[in-house]
Amino acid sequence: MDELIAPVEARFFAEVRARNNGGDWRRWKLVPEVEELKARARSEGLWNLFLPDADHSPGLSTLEYAPIAEEMGKLFLAPEIFNCNAPDTGNMEVLAKYGTPEQKREWLEPLLSGTIRSAFCMTEPDVASSDAANMKATAVLEGDEVVLNGKKWWATGIGHPECKILVYMGLTDPGADRHHQHSMVLVPLATPGVTIKRMLPTFSEWEEPYGHGEVWFENVRVPKSNIIAGEGKGFEIAQGRLGPGRIHHCMRCIGAAERALALLVERGARRVAFGKPLLALGGNAERIADLRIAIDQARLLTLYAAWRLDEVGARAAIAEISMIKVVAPRVLQEVADAAIQIHGGAGVTLDLPLTALFAQGRALRIADGPDAVHRGVIAKAEFRKYRDLQPARGTRA
Amino acid sequence: MDELIAPVEARFFAEVRARNNGGDWRRWKLVPEVEELKARARSEGLWNLFLPDADHSPGLSTLEYAPIAEEMGKLFLAPEIFNCNAPDTGNMEVLAKYGTPEQKREWLEPLLSGTIRSAFCMTEPDVASSDAANMKATAVLEGDEVVLNGKKWWATGIGHPECKILVYMGLTDPGADRHHQHSMVLVPLATPGVTIKRMLPTFSEWEEPYGHGEVWFENVRVPKSNIIAGEGKGFEIAQGRLGPGRIHHCMRCIGAAERALALLVERGARRVAFGKPLLALGGNAERIADLRIAIDQARLLTLYAAWRLDEVGARAAIAEISMIKVVAPRVLQEVADAAIQIHGGAGVTLDLPLTALFAQGRALRIADGPDAVHRGVIAKAEFRKYRDLQPARGTRA
Amino acid sequence: MDELIAPVEARFFAEVRARNNGGDWRRWKLVPEVEELKARARSEGLWNLFLPDADHSPGLSTLEYAPIAEEMGKLFLAPEIFNCNAPDTGNMEVLAKYGTPEQKREWLEPLLSGTIRSAFCMTEPDVASSDAANMKATAVLEGDEVVLNGKKWWATGIGHPECKILVYMGLTDPGADRHHQHSMVLVPLATPGVTIKRMLPTFSEWEEPYGHGEVWFENVRVPKSNIIAGEGKGFEIAQGRLGPGRIHHCMRCIGAAERALALLVERGARRVAFGKPLLALGGNAERIADLRIAIDQARLLTLYAAWRLDEVGARAAIAEISMIKVVAPRVLQEVADAAIQIHGGAGVTLDLPLTALFAQGRALRIADGPDAVHRGVIAKAEFRKYRDLQPARGTRA
Amino acid sequence: MDELIAPVEARFFAEVRARNNGGDWRRWKLVPEVEELKARARSEGLWNLFLPDADHSPGLSTLEYAPIAEEMGKLFLAPEIFNCNAPDTGNMEVLAKYGTPEQKREWLEPLLSGTIRSAFCMTEPDVASSDAANMKATAVLEGDEVVLNGKKWWATGIGHPECKILVYMGLTDPGADRHHQHSMVLVPLATPGVTIKRMLPTFSEWEEPYGHGEVWFENVRVPKSNIIAGEGKGFEIAQGRLGPGRIHHCMRCIGAAERALALLVERGARRVAFGKPLLALGGNAERIADLRIAIDQARLLTLYAAWRLDEVGARAAIAEISMIKVVAPRVLQEVADAAIQIHGGAGVTLDLPLTALFAQGRALRIADGPDAVHRGVIAKAEFRKYRDLQPARGTRA
Repeated sequence: MDELIAPVEARFFAEVRARNNGGDWRRWKLVPEVEELKARARSEGLWNLFLPDADHSPGLSTLEYAPIAEEMGKLFLAPEIFNCNAPDTGNMEVLAKYGTPEQKREWLEPLLSGTIRSAFCMTEPDVASSDAANMKATAVLEGDEVVLNGKKWWATGIGHPECKILVYMGLTDPGADRHHQHSMVLVPLATPGVTIKRMLPTFSEWEEPYGHGEVWFENVRVPKSNIIAGEGKGFEIAQGRLGPGRIHHCMRCIGAAERALALLVERGARRVAFGKPLLALGGNAERIADLRIAIDQARLLTLYAAWRLDEVGARAAIAEISMIKVVAPRVLQEVADAAIQIHGGAGVTLDLPLTALFAQGRALRIADGPDAVHRGVIAKAEFRKYRDLQPARGTRA
Repeated sequence: MDELIAPVEARFFAEVRARNNGGDWRRWKLVPEVEELKARARSEGLWNLFLPDADHSPGLSTLEYAPIAEEMGKLFLAPEIFNCNAPDTGNMEVLAKYGTPEQKREWLEPLLSGTIRSAFCMTEPDVASSDAANMKATAVLEGDEVVLNGKKWWATGIGHPECKILVYMGLTDPGADRHHQHSMVLVPLATPGVTIKRMLPTFSEWEEPYGHGEVWFENVRVPKSNIIAGEGKGFEIAQGRLGPGRIHHCMRCIGAAERALALLVERGARRVAFGKPLLALGGNAERIADLRIAIDQARLLTLYAAWRLDEVGARAAIAEISMIKVVAPRVLQEVADAAIQIHGGAGVTLDLPLTALFAQGRALRIADGPDAVHRGVIAKAEFRKYRDLQPARGTRA
Repeated sequence: MDELIAPVEARFFAEVRARNNGGDWRRWKLVPEVEELKARARSEGLWNLFLPDADHSPGLSTLEYAPIAEEMGKLFLAPEIFNCNAPDTGNMEVLAKYGTPEQKREWLEPLLSGTIRSAFCMTEPDVASSDAANMKATAVLEGDEVVLNGKKWWATGIGHPECKILVYMGLTDPGADRHHQHSMVLVPLATPGVTIKRMLPTFSEWEEPYGHGEVWFENVRVPKSNIIAGEGKGFEIAQGRLGPGRIHHCMRCIGAAERALALLVERGARRVAFGKPLLALGGNAERIADLRIAIDQARLLTLYAAWRLDEVGARAAIAEISMIKVVAPRVLQEVADAAIQIHGGAGVTLDLPLTALFAQGRALRIADGPDAVHRGVIAKAEFRKYRDLQPARGTRA
Repeated sequence: MDELIAPVEARFFAEVRARNNGGDWRRWKLVPEVEELKARARSEGLWNLFLPDADHSPGLSTLEYAPIAEEMGKLFLAPEIFNCNAPDTGNMEVLAKYGTPEQKREWLEPLLSGTIRSAFCMTEPDVASSDAANMKATAVLEGDEVVLNGKKWWATGIGHPECKILVYMGLTDPGADRHHQHSMVLVPLATPGVTIKRMLPTFSEWEEPYGHGEVWFENVRVPKSNIIAGEGKGFEIAQGRLGPGRIHHCMRCIGAAERALALLVERGARRVAFGKPLLALGGNAERIADLRIAIDQARLLTLYAAWRLDEVGARAAIAEISMIKVVAPRVLQEVADAAIQIHGGAGVTLDLPLTALFAQGRALRIADGPDAVHRGVIAKAEFRKYRDLQPARGTRA
């Protein structure tokens, strides 16, 4: 990480920001050194580490993967180098679990080998996507085809030069029960009717080459065989996909928070005001203690949620996953905010990775379910323990 | 716990509060049912569970003891029933580790069998005890005796009817280096010159029969052989004693916080306002989610600190112990505060254990080192990682 | 305040706590020095300052009264000395505004002259009183009498040796609309069927002689003429009464918070640890800055709410009153908590007024409406500004 | 504001962001509609409202200006339209107060008429500028000239196409006492040796046309007569300048926070999830209540600080100014953060002004003195009240 990846990252971001393509994703470029490092990582077996399925990977459990993902979280470019970058990870998991042999051969294999990239098209701009029942995009069967219409956004990675395949979720049968209305469909990016309208900034950062796109589907037609696991399975697949994905995000948040804390302490040790290093002034030492506590607690909760996921599955571990999803991004945001503060004016510039780290935490409090929804899940799990209690008017204490 | 201890506790506290002895500790009484339950616990081997030393106990590690201590933390009377009550636990640890055969026979054995109780006399009313160097009480050698003079307070358990022995810490040699000035001395409570001046309330609660005393030592003389581990070893013993003690407190805090959360959710499920159970109103569900997160994170950090203590010892695990010491009492205070709020006026009365749970957390943010001192320890450990950084005037970013 | 009242308060509380009557309110005593000081205050015109009605008082506006009430908030005994003690203040306001000439002569006059005391019986133990519609106590008309049945608690001042008259609120007509079901009735404490069951502690403090009682009404009969302002006016009177009462509580909270901050800074300046006054250590200075900000902001909001009350009345100023009701008690609780912390073990004892100040703030977050209800009022006022906005499914951003 | 300025602002930012000049400030453009609106504002007397000096303005006090500045804070373009934009405001104040007739004619008059713009060059990239004594840039006298060398950054407005004049602060006499070492010098931007190295982003926003520059001074020579108020007066002028400037920033923060809250409530009223508008879900209503309280308290504190400044001057009102400087930017940051959250993914894009509002608050917690320095000022003022207290070892309680 320190020797090989950090220098590449520093050079790359300086160059990207000088080039300043802004939203013109058509000009986004690969990072050639990343391609070289990917080859090396693959040859050394540091590849697809996220995948528990030992056929395609070293076969690490979620818990075993956690410290590795934390390390990757310390550099923005690192996850791709080990082929562990979202949303490819989730898409590979889905294909490995639900894909037909043809789907696997055509899309899973190149993803596993890192020669193509993918995107996931679920969130919509026009409705509150925190409630899946709001989804308006459609995936309607017509003969041997499925016809897609709708607007999606926050499709991470869709602007990457190597992105070839999209996983699209749409409404197939509004008459079915709430959990069987949607289908998940594989859509090659080059299909007619698929248009990337723009890439979206996160706090004004476009995050080339991994950023997030708004993409419209207008009468897009793909063969019925592109549906994953059959019609109406979209909700089930999405739920299964989100569990590990959320924890992976949180693992990387811990690493990112460690990076921000290290910058904070280094700055505080070196900068002098009123005759003392900043660390020795006012409440700085206590703040650092509180941040250290917050990071260590977030790590422990991430490990616990990972262990629970391994032991009982994403469905039974839903409250633990929601807990860490609430905690880890917030901790990253807090540590980055404190690190910005101690850097003074430099903290809010692009000279340092701090605003990007801040934005990562901030955006993740929304992505994969906003905090409020996760708090709701946790509360519901708590109330379930007291399920037999009846509200009783007039019963004392 | 539910079947045998909870009913005793409810009866006992109702009776104590009706009797309302206030500060008159001379009228404090044993809880006869506790004595019966102690006998039963002992006969079933549920005894001295806190002690890793397998000669005198089941020999659990700190980590193994953690979930048991958490359970005991759910009822105020439980720790004594299993002979796991502070400060006897710490005093037994000290005697087991440092005591002479005579000291062990005379004091450790009856403590291990639960027939007597003890107190620990370290904190002083007249100085900031967070800095051990402030200590003014003396333990001066004169021939074969050691002479004690000074005022101590927050001597927990000193008013218990069975309390017989005190562990006293005093200044022996002001000329020695900072860590070898103090001695720890065994003082039978009945020694002339020892006077319990009063029992202290914690948020107006006297905590019979376990409460905290102010005790004066005026020309108290005991044989030199009552010094534990030799002159000047007070600081070393105190440090070793405090590590497990702090974690034990934190384990019990987790249990106490679970008790408060259970009361909160039960009340919220049963009480109705504006046509709905309180749980369904406003921010209550989100608050409960945050408290569940806080408790689970505190538990994980406690387990982690316990594991570190077992693995590397109290000295090397000092930062982890300080972390949990900052976290667990605060979480208990927060959960109790929220539980009080949802109970309305009932929450601040003695009809419920909530104010006592609140006071337990609140007082523990001071006892065994105030939060600010522990934050200092954590920050220092963090800074040590960056020890080679030099403050450099005028070095950019 | 400093010269005359503070010494009396210190002596009185020391004595009360030594006497330790606990819940036995029958042994509660007047403070003779308070009676002397009352006479002096009255002779100097420092009397009934809370009452805007110039017939019975200096005729100060709520805004003008604010700095005076803040001063009174610095000592627990001060409000009674100036005949400005709750709940007499609210009861006098009600009688001055709604009382018949007979009611005024019999009850308002002795209250204005400070020769008797009163209590207010609204909150009930068996229901969530935050929702007035929950109220179960009844006030049923039978011929020329009104018959009262029900349990009330948190009747402040009911244990005061001079308490003679209660203002009781009960359900008269369940068939009327929500705001006209209740009546407010004057009940002499000596009426048969009125029983003070016990005095309630607040965080274990009984607050002699002003504390709060649980009182049962069993077939209590008083003449119909004891109804204030006619049947069904209970809700209207309660609403009008609560506005000024809440602000008065908040004014006193500011003074109480100033007292706690002064104790904090004094202790921090005098106590030494690690070779420095506590104020110079760690985050203490920053914490004090934050508390100073919090107090000053609470004062400004209190003054603003008082001015709004004077200008537009309690009904139109409801959001402002709710705001200060949320803020001021919380600030008092926070400042007292921080002051306790810097005092170490002394902070949680009765040697200092800090736990009582803490309990005052804590209890007031429940009394006169819990925080959550007031937040609801504030949010509703905010939403009203956007009343014409329609939820629109599928409208972007 | 709504009718004339808001539409211009929306169009302008959409255009700027599409143009996406990034850091290339040489391509920054005026907003032609702003020039038209400026002419109109001037003709209607809505001009230089910030300036208490009635010779050049309507002569409003700081307190009278507060609600007007709050309104301007609701739109980024508004302050310039009324010639009330920082840092021109502060520079005009300085010239009005300390300028010679020549300085006034040459620079103050065109600034007052809005035909040129200016920048203020104080903060340096290489040192902690929170401590003025750290300043390394120099202003050395040589004959009739003063020679400037040093690097400055966060020179707001320096990239504006009409920026013509800089106010530079540098070290003149290191041997003088701490408060008389620096001089403030007028430097035409076109002077040889002045180089704008780059414009700086704030959270990746370049803030065209008002953004902040890094500017180097290399052997820049200007006549000695360009020194303002004489050598060594830099510190005094800076202190006097910062008082009103800080309050003006805070006034605008209040307006900006109101804008963010309005967006939050509108979105919450319109968006639907789980069958209800977001406002009706979970803790949203309580959060909005807390934000309303925070904004109203920040406004009151701003008004109070403004009144104090008017009454006693910036020096005596230093603690009040520091208080509002800590509070107002933090409140803006919090409200913007909450508004982002309720907008979901849209919240972090450039489709809405929320990230810019967030960045405004965030950056202002650093600009004009970081929070920690202001907390230090407040604490010092508090301690001064207890100046006679001596730390006393061993004095009880």
